[in-house]
Amino acid sequence: MPVPFGDDVSAFEIGGGRLAVLKTDMLVGKTDVPPGMSFLQAARKAVVMNISDLAAKGVRPIALLASIGIPRNLNKRDIEQIGKGLNTGAREYGAYVLGGDTSEASELVISCAFFGIGEKKRLMLRSGAKPNDIVAVTGSFGNTAAGLKILLQNLSAPSRIRKTLVDSVLMPRARLNEGLALAETGAVTASIDSSDGLAWSLHEIARASHVGFLIDKLPIAEEAKQLAKMHKLDPTELCLYGGEEYELVVTVKPMLWKRVMKKLPLIRIGRVTKQKTLILKAGKKMFPVEARGWEHFKTSLPKS
Amino acid sequence: MPVPFGDDVSAFEIGGGRLAVLKTDMLVGKTDVPPGMSFLQAARKAVVMNISDLAAKGVRPIALLASIGIPRNLNKRDIEQIGKGLNTGAREYGAYVLGGDTSEASELVISCAFFGIGEKKRLMLRSGAKPNDIVAVTGSFGNTAAGLKILLQNLSAPSRIRKTLVDSVLMPRARLNEGLALAETGAVTASIDSSDGLAWSLHEIARASHVGFLIDKLPIAEEAKQLAKMHKLDPTELCLYGGEEYELVVTVKPMLWKRVMKKLPLIRIGRVTKQKTLILKAGKKMFPVEARGWEHFKTSLPKS
Repeated sequence: MPVPFGDDVSAFEIGGGRLAVLKTDMLVGKTDVPPGMSFLQAARKAVVMNISDLAAKGVRPIALLASIGIPRNLNKRDIEQIGKGLNTGAREYGAYVLGGDTSEASELVISCAFFGIGEKKRLMLRSGAKPNDIVAVTGSFGNTAAGLKILLQNLSAPSRIRKTLVDSVLMPRARLNEGLALAETGAVTASIDSSDGLAWSLHEIARASHVGFLIDKLPIAEEAKQLAKMHKLDPTELCLYGGEEYELVVTVKPMLWKRVMKKLPLIRIGRVTKQKTLILKAGKKMFPVEARGWEHFKTSLPKS
Repeated sequence: MPVPFGDDVSAFEIGGGRLAVLKTDMLVGKTDVPPGMSFLQAARKAVVMNISDLAAKGVRPIALLASIGIPRNLNKRDIEQIGKGLNTGAREYGAYVLGGDTSEASELVISCAFFGIGEKKRLMLRSGAKPNDIVAVTGSFGNTAAGLKILLQNLSAPSRIRKTLVDSVLMPRARLNEGLALAETGAVTASIDSSDGLAWSLHEIARASHVGFLIDKLPIAEEAKQLAKMHKLDPTELCLYGGEEYELVVTVKPMLWKRVMKKLPLIRIGRVTKQKTLILKAGKKMFPVEARGWEHFKTSLPKS
């Protein structure tokens, strides 16, 4: 199999060095739709969740099928909004909705099945990180964890940061262009998306590549820092153990780092170690990066 | 698009006259899993539902991804049985499980995404039926509707027919070999599977092909007839308006009928008419075939 079981996507060869790449992921109302998220946003998120995994592998999504479980209390407009959200999400990333089906269900369930075609030699797996590779991310972390605290625990926030934090949850973006550009460079040795949190993603690459990490710079988002300060939250916790954040976490050959940075700006956060431990270095102190991930929240859809 | 929106599968061209064919369908515990069906059987059914649609188009399934929503009350053994059911179903039809994901959900939900490769010129759509084509099916109808009555209403049945009827519900079979053989003949002008009932399938072909049907022989299964007699049920109702039956309903060029019958035995049930009505002829009487389909039952999974 060209992609090992347990990586972000599945694939098989279709000739000419090409792979048919498949991905399916299910959005469940109770655990994936926070209060304040509309049906359109929920459906769009179901699309983004899947595209993020394709992006992490450097594969362009072509088409998707959606299989939707619809609870009885939804009305025609709600269902139209779901359709619109699927289309909106797909079109943002150049893919299109090819078909699907609906069933009655106890809660909203949107399962997307994505199809893309990738080049075998360009595919970025979780398993290729080597000692001394540079660890980098495509953006900062912590805003979705902070935004979820606003939505779930009704934390107050000044309007200038509130919108950024809440939007990071309600309108997440997959790093497709970044993933495609990174795959082009041939410099990336391992890649994963960060939907289960930064710490979890690092542990997954470590496990698949049989390496460890020394992280010496936490990419904490500015808005998350501000909310943390206001409410006495731990910014490191928001950054490492949040989730639903769709940045890419990659390891890069050190010789090619400059060339990569000319194509797109990454944030360097540390390096790969031979020793299979995950360490965060803060000043002169060392902390373990725990293998904790994103815990889904429990809620229910807005009654709308 | 090589397959119109609303047909059984979706597809796009990948070069060389070949199509990437995609199908997704979702099994929902409440509506698709009758009492008496095990977790293994439920997962296998989720596979069969999808393969049946590929079979109707004449496309061989290659691989599937499963996206599974798991309620809290399931234990490890239940989840293993679900995995086993997916594999069992896939292997029966020469496909394999390529990956998938699990989420927590309020009820059991199994969404399969199938991938296959088909030849564009061989694909059997819903839309090609012509007046005077022969209407035929791959098997008899009514046993699943009868079997569901046994499971849902606790109807009594002698053991010699009970097993056949109940097994038709718990261990359905997709007509993959039949679909592939029919596509090979080049004689089939329209095709659909009968998962929503025979009457519904006929209406769907009629609508997509802009034709009507004159049905003069109902393919009622022997066991369904016997149960109908015992419990004063209407065998025509069981045959036409049941569902969850995975036979193929096809229209065949009359000139090629004999050649098709040499390859596989079909049951001729009528012919295509220019007039866009659906008529059942029984003796000298004429009845309309109503556009009613399979109504999903409501139940809950066995507590195991």
